[in-house]
Amino acid sequence: MAHEITAEIISIGDELLIGQTVNTNAGWMGGQLALIGIRVTRVVTISDHRQDILDAMSAAVADVVLITGGLGPTKDDITKEALCDFFGTQLVRDKEVEARVVDMYRRMGRDPEDILEMNIAQADLPEGCTVIPNERGTASGMWFERPASSQGGDGVESRVFVSMPGVPYEMKAMMTGGILPTLKERFRPPTIVHRTVLTTGLGESLLAKRIEAWEDSLAAARIKLAYLPSPGIVKLRLSTYADVDASAAHQRVDRKIAELHGIIPDLIFGEGEENLQQVVGGLLKQRGQTLSLAESCTGGYVSHLITSIPGSSAYYTGGVVSYANAVKMEELGIPSDMLELNGAVSQPVVEQMASGVRTALRTDWSVAYSGVAGPDGGTPEKPVGTVWIAVAGPDGVRSKRVHLPGTRDLVIERSALAGLNMLRKRLLEVA
Amino acid sequence: MAHEITAEIISIGDELLIGQTVNTNAGWMGGQLALIGIRVTRVVTISDHRQDILDAMSAAVADVVLITGGLGPTKDDITKEALCDFFGTQLVRDKEVEARVVDMYRRMGRDPEDILEMNIAQADLPEGCTVIPNERGTASGMWFERPASSQGGDGVESRVFVSMPGVPYEMKAMMTGGILPTLKERFRPPTIVHRTVLTTGLGESLLAKRIEAWEDSLAAARIKLAYLPSPGIVKLRLSTYADVDASAAHQRVDRKIAELHGIIPDLIFGEGEENLQQVVGGLLKQRGQTLSLAESCTGGYVSHLITSIPGSSAYYTGGVVSYANAVKMEELGIPSDMLELNGAVSQPVVEQMASGVRTALRTDWSVAYSGVAGPDGGTPEKPVGTVWIAVAGPDGVRSKRVHLPGTRDLVIERSALAGLNMLRKRLLEVA
Repeated sequence: MAHEITAEIISIGDELLIGQTVNTNAGWMGGQLALIGIRVTRVVTISDHRQDILDAMSAAVADVVLITGGLGPTKDDITKEALCDFFGTQLVRDKEVEARVVDMYRRMGRDPEDILEMNIAQADLPEGCTVIPNERGTASGMWFERPASSQGGDGVESRVFVSMPGVPYEMKAMMTGGILPTLKERFRPPTIVHRTVLTTGLGESLLAKRIEAWEDSLAAARIKLAYLPSPGIVKLRLSTYADVDASAAHQRVDRKIAELHGIIPDLIFGEGEENLQQVVGGLLKQRGQTLSLAESCTGGYVSHLITSIPGSSAYYTGGVVSYANAVKMEELGIPSDMLELNGAVSQPVVEQMASGVRTALRTDWSVAYSGVAGPDGGTPEKPVGTVWIAVAGPDGVRSKRVHLPGTRDLVIERSALAGLNMLRKRLLEVA
Repeated sequence: MAHEITAEIISIGDELLIGQTVNTNAGWMGGQLALIGIRVTRVVTISDHRQDILDAMSAAVADVVLITGGLGPTKDDITKEALCDFFGTQLVRDKEVEARVVDMYRRMGRDPEDILEMNIAQADLPEGCTVIPNERGTASGMWFERPASSQGGDGVESRVFVSMPGVPYEMKAMMTGGILPTLKERFRPPTIVHRTVLTTGLGESLLAKRIEAWEDSLAAARIKLAYLPSPGIVKLRLSTYADVDASAAHQRVDRKIAELHGIIPDLIFGEGEENLQQVVGGLLKQRGQTLSLAESCTGGYVSHLITSIPGSSAYYTGGVVSYANAVKMEELGIPSDMLELNGAVSQPVVEQMASGVRTALRTDWSVAYSGVAGPDGGTPEKPVGTVWIAVAGPDGVRSKRVHLPGTRDLVIERSALAGLNMLRKRLLEVA
């Protein structure tokens, strides 16, 4: 194999060192770089001190050094000054960036006299760097090249330094919009073929047990498997190097994924970057059908998941969050004696919630949730984590009770996914 | 001031570098160390490679070096071997730890013959280190002291290295149970006083402009200020060293925070780890009042925020997510000609949404949202990011239009906070 391309990440920010902000950027960047065949060897997190920044840059030995943070307009942000020191250059105002910054503030409704010199100074950038436009904020990215030999490297290849803002959604847009494609073009790392299969319904260790024989067969196909668990979901990532012929590598992976579909058809709900709410939304859209929700213990979270997908208004009509019992009765047509007799967390109530919201909002489908998210409110019969979920559709109402582990947040998250997965399966049945 | 005590953290694990696991340990440790007056200057995250571990240890210059990860029983965990290399020692079996490990497996129900040599080898520890017992797992912590002079340091004080498992709840128990108190005893660091003031309603740069004179006055009080921005919120962290008398330092910070309340009373909504939904919930609870929500563009997210707080059922009755116009009309009593005339994103509609849900759910307060979250649906008159928000209460309905920047997720997030802050201010007015 050719020379492995390596990267280092320098994360700048006092808030990262004291845990006020969790450094999610570095891991995301590492994952994205891995996808194009560049391996991150080290992440260094430091504070907004000039000398610390210079030391970290001097110590870098990788082909690519990605730096985030310290590009804000306030006095504590000094990354640009450190970059000027390191590259022996100075700040000059970039007229194009200046116009963009002013325009951005204007579009946000800021009066021209309120656009401060501090804001305009966001257009002051180190002379000689390649400016990476920021579509989502005022801090530009900066791309520098420096011969490796001048740092005592092997002198064969130059080293690339890229400085980006630490705001995740600004950094991510820069990475995917320009930096990752340019790095791929520039270093031509060996191609890695990745595919990620999404599963829900079984935890990591039970899933591993069920696919054990299949997993053992991957080595012969030179495929590496990674389990990527998150609450309620386990992603299975298959990866392999493409030697000469990328299509052969794709075929090897395709074959193994087809086998996996034969082994756990009930658990797989999608692939890649999809999520369950997208998959469900896609199925509803295909069928031209609509959805409504009645949420008690999930408190609006499922509605939030559904509406986080652009275009969800095509199939999502709306929902009712019934936190007080009075709302359940009035909005969802639940008789008060049904509530008294069974309690809110019960099969009859959750089924009536589903039917009630489906009728009220005249949708094809509805999902209802009633449970004990905790930390309080549990009883010996209905401990924290007990959740009733119902799906109502053209072919009637069905419900099930689940017992979900974890804190309040996790019970809500896992309930949401369990209900969406019930709906997904029903949609596939009816099709 | 006495010599500042510094720490470095070395986080070991391939999974951290590719984003499979987010490195939450380092930030937590940094926060804990800050509380006892030890400043983390650098976090270095590396993979489970012997040379990378040795390089990171050699490069450390802080008084304390805390290492996590790589202590598991499997072959890819090699931190102990690297420690032996670094300190010129070797692994020896610790009989006491061996007994504890065997006992731990037994209590987990493992048959004695199923306790593998791999598991027993968890009791092999570098000769000469001080063993830190692990109450929650089989990997012991290890404490090493090394004269700074042998590493080219100033030779005055020795450097402490502590190696711990990467499993967060094992590491945390070791830190709070023994390492933090011992470090405090050993280094007697100066006490740091921290307080964080939470603001919403102005971005970082406009806020900085408004408190410029106050910020300039902090130096004389030996207080450092940090801006910690996140979407819709800017936290202001004040910190200072307590020299001899900690109460004097508290007074200095208290005085400055009191001044700040005088300058930006409209922007401050809380302190420390609070969030806006907690503050609003607390105000409602104090008053014995109730809340309902009518959400269009926010799609249930505000309801989710409110219900993410344990005990929110005491004041939150429920809400309606009206994604389709039909839901707005029926559930919230909006005349169809009002919708036709003004469009859903308009002042009359959002005010009727707020009044409608307040009446339907018989609550003291309600908040309603109608806007264009994007990415589609914007028009020249109502571009993406245009959001109408109304608060209805005992003293009537008031509304305002905001223009919020960012992606769909951010428009939703910022809308939610803007509405909760409107509600907070109204609650304070009426009080």
